[in-house]
Amino acid sequence: MPRVLAIDIGGTRMRAAAFEGELLAYEVLATEVEKGPDHVIKRLLEASHRVLKKVSWEKIDGIGMAVPGPLDRVKKTINSPPNMPGWDNIPIGDIFESEFNAPSFIDNDANAAALGEAIYGAGKGASVVTYFTVSTGIGGGCVIKGHIFHGAGDNAAEFGHQKLDPFGPPCGCGRRGCLEALASGTAIARRAKELLLHNPQSLLWQIVQGNIDKVSARLVAEAASKGDALSLRVIQEAGFWLGLGIANIINLFNPKVVILGGGVMNAGELILKPARETALQKAIPQLASIVEIKVAGLGEFPGLYGAGEVALQGLRGELDTL
Amino acid sequence: MPRVLAIDIGGTRMRAAAFEGELLAYEVLATEVEKGPDHVIKRLLEASHRVLKKVSWEKIDGIGMAVPGPLDRVKKTINSPPNMPGWDNIPIGDIFESEFNAPSFIDNDANAAALGEAIYGAGKGASVVTYFTVSTGIGGGCVIKGHIFHGAGDNAAEFGHQKLDPFGPPCGCGRRGCLEALASGTAIARRAKELLLHNPQSLLWQIVQGNIDKVSARLVAEAASKGDALSLRVIQEAGFWLGLGIANIINLFNPKVVILGGGVMNAGELILKPARETALQKAIPQLASIVEIKVAGLGEFPGLYGAGEVALQGLRGELDTL
Repeated sequence: MPRVLAIDIGGTRMRAAAFEGELLAYEVLATEVEKGPDHVIKRLLEASHRVLKKVSWEKIDGIGMAVPGPLDRVKKTINSPPNMPGWDNIPIGDIFESEFNAPSFIDNDANAAALGEAIYGAGKGASVVTYFTVSTGIGGGCVIKGHIFHGAGDNAAEFGHQKLDPFGPPCGCGRRGCLEALASGTAIARRAKELLLHNPQSLLWQIVQGNIDKVSARLVAEAASKGDALSLRVIQEAGFWLGLGIANIINLFNPKVVILGGGVMNAGELILKPARETALQKAIPQLASIVEIKVAGLGEFPGLYGAGEVALQGLRGELDTL
Repeated sequence: MPRVLAIDIGGTRMRAAAFEGELLAYEVLATEVEKGPDHVIKRLLEASHRVLKKVSWEKIDGIGMAVPGPLDRVKKTINSPPNMPGWDNIPIGDIFESEFNAPSFIDNDANAAALGEAIYGAGKGASVVTYFTVSTGIGGGCVIKGHIFHGAGDNAAEFGHQKLDPFGPPCGCGRRGCLEALASGTAIARRAKELLLHNPQSLLWQIVQGNIDKVSARLVAEAASKGDALSLRVIQEAGFWLGLGIANIINLFNPKVVILGGGVMNAGELILKPARETALQKAIPQLASIVEIKVAGLGEFPGLYGAGEVALQGLRGELDTL
């Protein structure tokens, strides 16, 4: 099997690994995105050298990278992701290629995570796998027979921007009622803040000590797990909308497996139960009957596995299958 | 090019053609579905013989069939479509194979129409084509690089059953707020009837002579085209919902072309304008910027072209690509 340097760059953390169908060695670093691309890339190159040294690889066959979109897969550039100010037209592929003297292949983080989970994680062996990242925003990816479905313009599977309620809350995309505006971490925090104003007796209020700016999806989940009625309601509502979004994806993509990843899923059964129940109840029964709804199986590494697999497929010339 | 007998069976009309990348000869017949499968199949076999005779083909290489779902593509059976009572487990493939001594290949009507339009019609040359049939119900199909995307269980692209409004009107599928319940011919007629009760002065009321049971999507479109305010509102509302459904399909499948077919699209710009405007306004701009929204290019024959193409791909062993 080819020897691959796998890279996963996120807004908060970044990772480098020596990948050979599994992670032989890896490092996880804080991205420190506020210090700008030069700083971040320098540290990522250093970490890459360290992981390759750990496995004593003097030469690698390819580099696979999972990076935030928008990006250009052909030019291998990162093009101004919303959460990475200053990353404008950064030739991340070229930088790594000249450092390690090997071809690079890049894809966006959600697609890479979907591919990682489809090939090595919760979707192993399934013909059609759809993946939701439920985090600050909501991203998606669809893998058909082992290949990422990219769409005509490299932007398919924007699962977070399906409209579920045309008169719903405003979304960061400028429209209303997108799944992302109803079930993301941001949406959960916003909804909890709205309700908190009228519920100063709630546990969540105590947890944030009356400082509403401290409310986050993580704290809402924490309060919910301790029985706070307000927080339970917010998480369950988010679960309902997530389930409705999953039902649509089931009816449109007819997947064998729907995988749920991202930080919000750390809320566990609190959000998973209403999401799963709603999805299976709202999808067409024939399609619901064949689908499994699962949490991601690769922990914090679906993007890293996916980056590795992107390189393997790139080296085999299979990246543009779909 | 192989010589193909192409068959398209619908609830109202059925068609047979001699197909060689184009329709060399064809017949269109009333299905007479109420007379049962034996009667229908007998007449369709006779029509098939007549079209083959017209082009003097004594032997054919394959048979392609577009039929209403649910169906079994492997067993080549029709399995109790909702609008075809008595068609339970009908081995339509075997019947035609033994009559014409050639292999048969079948797919559902919406998939076949999508494929026909993608290869020979309004989607020619596009890498990702999505197709809506807007008729009594709303069906869909997605063609990726020239092949039908079937999903894991052969039921992908149920575009009519995306939920757009969880508290919307009931749908035939037993759920609420599906696109089909908001923008199909059935939905248009239902909404017009609701409004008509309070608007006996409207032109639509005159057209149906006060007999509300006569209201159909076709008559609503006719009244709208003559300026009837009630009917205009109904068609425009349906156009809005159709546009929202198209926006979701754009965000999820990132198609190069969205094609709109089916009887309801005979309302022309009355429904197309609000649908197109809403779709382009609600979809993510980057994805909206590359998409073309078009009406079907093959008139009443997308299913027949698609059936022919299904046979060509079947003979080349390409049917299970996706």
